[in-house]
Amino acid sequence: MDVKLKILRNKLLSQKLDGMIVSNPINVRYLTGLIEEGILLITPKENIFLTDSRYLENVNKKLTIEDEIVTYNIKDMTQYEYENVFNGCSSVGFEEKYVTYENYKRYLQQYRVELIETDGIVETQRVVKEDDEIECIEKACKITDDCFDYICNHIVEGMTEKEIAFEIEKYFVHHGADGLAFDTIVASGENSSVPHASPTDRKIQKGDIIQFDMGCKVNGYCSDFSRVIFVGEMKEEYKKIYDFVLDTHDRIALRYKDQVNIKPIIKDVETDYKLKGYEVLHSFGHGVGLEIHEIPIQRSTVDCMLKQNSVITVEPGVYIPGKFGIRIEDTYVVDKMGLNSLTKYSRDYKIVKLAKK
Amino acid sequence: MDVKLKILRNKLLSQKLDGMIVSNPINVRYLTGLIEEGILLITPKENIFLTDSRYLENVNKKLTIEDEIVTYNIKDMTQYEYENVFNGCSSVGFEEKYVTYENYKRYLQQYRVELIETDGIVETQRVVKEDDEIECIEKACKITDDCFDYICNHIVEGMTEKEIAFEIEKYFVHHGADGLAFDTIVASGENSSVPHASPTDRKIQKGDIIQFDMGCKVNGYCSDFSRVIFVGEMKEEYKKIYDFVLDTHDRIALRYKDQVNIKPIIKDVETDYKLKGYEVLHSFGHGVGLEIHEIPIQRSTVDCMLKQNSVITVEPGVYIPGKFGIRIEDTYVVDKMGLNSLTKYSRDYKIVKLAKK
Repeated sequence: MDVKLKILRNKLLSQKLDGMIVSNPINVRYLTGLIEEGILLITPKENIFLTDSRYLENVNKKLTIEDEIVTYNIKDMTQYEYENVFNGCSSVGFEEKYVTYENYKRYLQQYRVELIETDGIVETQRVVKEDDEIECIEKACKITDDCFDYICNHIVEGMTEKEIAFEIEKYFVHHGADGLAFDTIVASGENSSVPHASPTDRKIQKGDIIQFDMGCKVNGYCSDFSRVIFVGEMKEEYKKIYDFVLDTHDRIALRYKDQVNIKPIIKDVETDYKLKGYEVLHSFGHGVGLEIHEIPIQRSTVDCMLKQNSVITVEPGVYIPGKFGIRIEDTYVVDKMGLNSLTKYSRDYKIVKLAKK
Repeated sequence: MDVKLKILRNKLLSQKLDGMIVSNPINVRYLTGLIEEGILLITPKENIFLTDSRYLENVNKKLTIEDEIVTYNIKDMTQYEYENVFNGCSSVGFEEKYVTYENYKRYLQQYRVELIETDGIVETQRVVKEDDEIECIEKACKITDDCFDYICNHIVEGMTEKEIAFEIEKYFVHHGADGLAFDTIVASGENSSVPHASPTDRKIQKGDIIQFDMGCKVNGYCSDFSRVIFVGEMKEEYKKIYDFVLDTHDRIALRYKDQVNIKPIIKDVETDYKLKGYEVLHSFGHGVGLEIHEIPIQRSTVDCMLKQNSVITVEPGVYIPGKFGIRIEDTYVVDKMGLNSLTKYSRDYKIVKLAKK
């Protein structure tokens, strides 16, 4: 049985739960490696993956005896068999943030057992990554670094933001990524003044600032990375903000390590923003894993201890309305002594030449 | 007030509901045109869009007095104000297939009113399209037709399925689509034998069959279209299946019209598949609108009357395991006398030349 399933089983015991229905597909994937549709039933006797005919063949191919997961076809389940699943259990957890009211009712009817609301049991477990998970994120980060380098050398006169975004996405898919971690952001000139701009048909021109926010997935695990580049020249007004953002990034990153509370660090940075007259438009980072935004949440209002082998981003940004914005983001693993960077691309000023068509 | 909201209000009255909480963002978009996060509260006195600071400015820009929708900021809502929303109501509907157990509990606590499970109230209304909705789907279908024509003329020696899929997606975005209706399918050679293949790095070669299944969105409304093409030549074995699939497509499409029951038509086709020894691997079509798969469902086991101004697809397919598959799909509007095709690309045998690099 995978260590992730063992940890969950211990957690259920400590919370006095006899079993659990895991319905969130991200949590199912985390615990079983399966991307096929279905739910995972943790019972005192066994781990059951309940799926249907469309997926049965694939699932049986993927699972081995060592997984200790038995697969049932939903079609073969009688009411008697449903009631048998949690036979003898007095309380079984379900994910109240994920399960719809309709499915909750159906579970009650099928399993005839007391269902206990749970919130974030598996999500909390996902915060600390196993080695194989970090490896996947590392690979995704490497592809992202390489892709950014490729793109910086391939911006041609007259290219639009959308075209650059497409090149990025093409690169990802052709270099071993499963797909995008999120919709790629390429925001040039004044478009960069909004944190989550969608790529437009605006053509890149000399003097532009271009904000990139990009990431891909490897085995479902995400990378997250932001840089700005300057086309042909770097205007004086950009420098002050760039330096402040980079400085803020490092001031956060250098204080983060295992067993450190995020809250006062973020509080300090927010105070600094206020003093400088900058608005805080988004959080300064987030956890990364099978989802692009995971816990831990980095807020100045919530105590949150960092944990070794968590994967997080640091991403401060400053946005001057109607003019431009600058955000610098890296993906890191939390370690005993500090952060280890998984995206490694240089954060020096990057001035690119606009190649002729 | 938009006619869609008026129709819903009448429907609620006829079902003895005093109000409704619409939480499914697709339903909210359908009723209000808003894509911003929030929920729509239909109360006896007014229509309320409950959102937060991130969206308030945009929402207020979009809504006019004629919309008769008032916007509240979630931040300003006290418990007193929540209880006031459905004041005097004895029963208020909620979408049990969409609302999570956690949100259901929260709604109960906030609104202090009896919540009644509803299933598909707005979804059923969405089956019959208004003129402006059909116009959007028509535009999406036109872009899809044009894109397919473009692609057929731009398949170059050595191109992979993934590269072709990227070209399709690029074309969509550059020709007025909001984005993809679903992940584009480009499946060549033996890859076409699976209905929902993801594009691979397989290179196109002479003699290949290529299955396309593609669609884009305009104002959120989807198109859906499938064709196969033959590279350089069309092998004899493909012809028999192609003719059967095309014939099946037309046998369905020619019988469909307003007030016709889908069930016996699909039953006939399924019988025919059995006689020929083909397996039915997916449904023969589906409704299309703001979602790529909507009601009506086309099954041989369920009575379902077609309605004028529904938009549906017809998409029979035959798959020869390990060898190849052929699916031909068009998007149609249901009319009094029959179907009107919105995707109009020719269904003749299409043999394309492989251009040199």
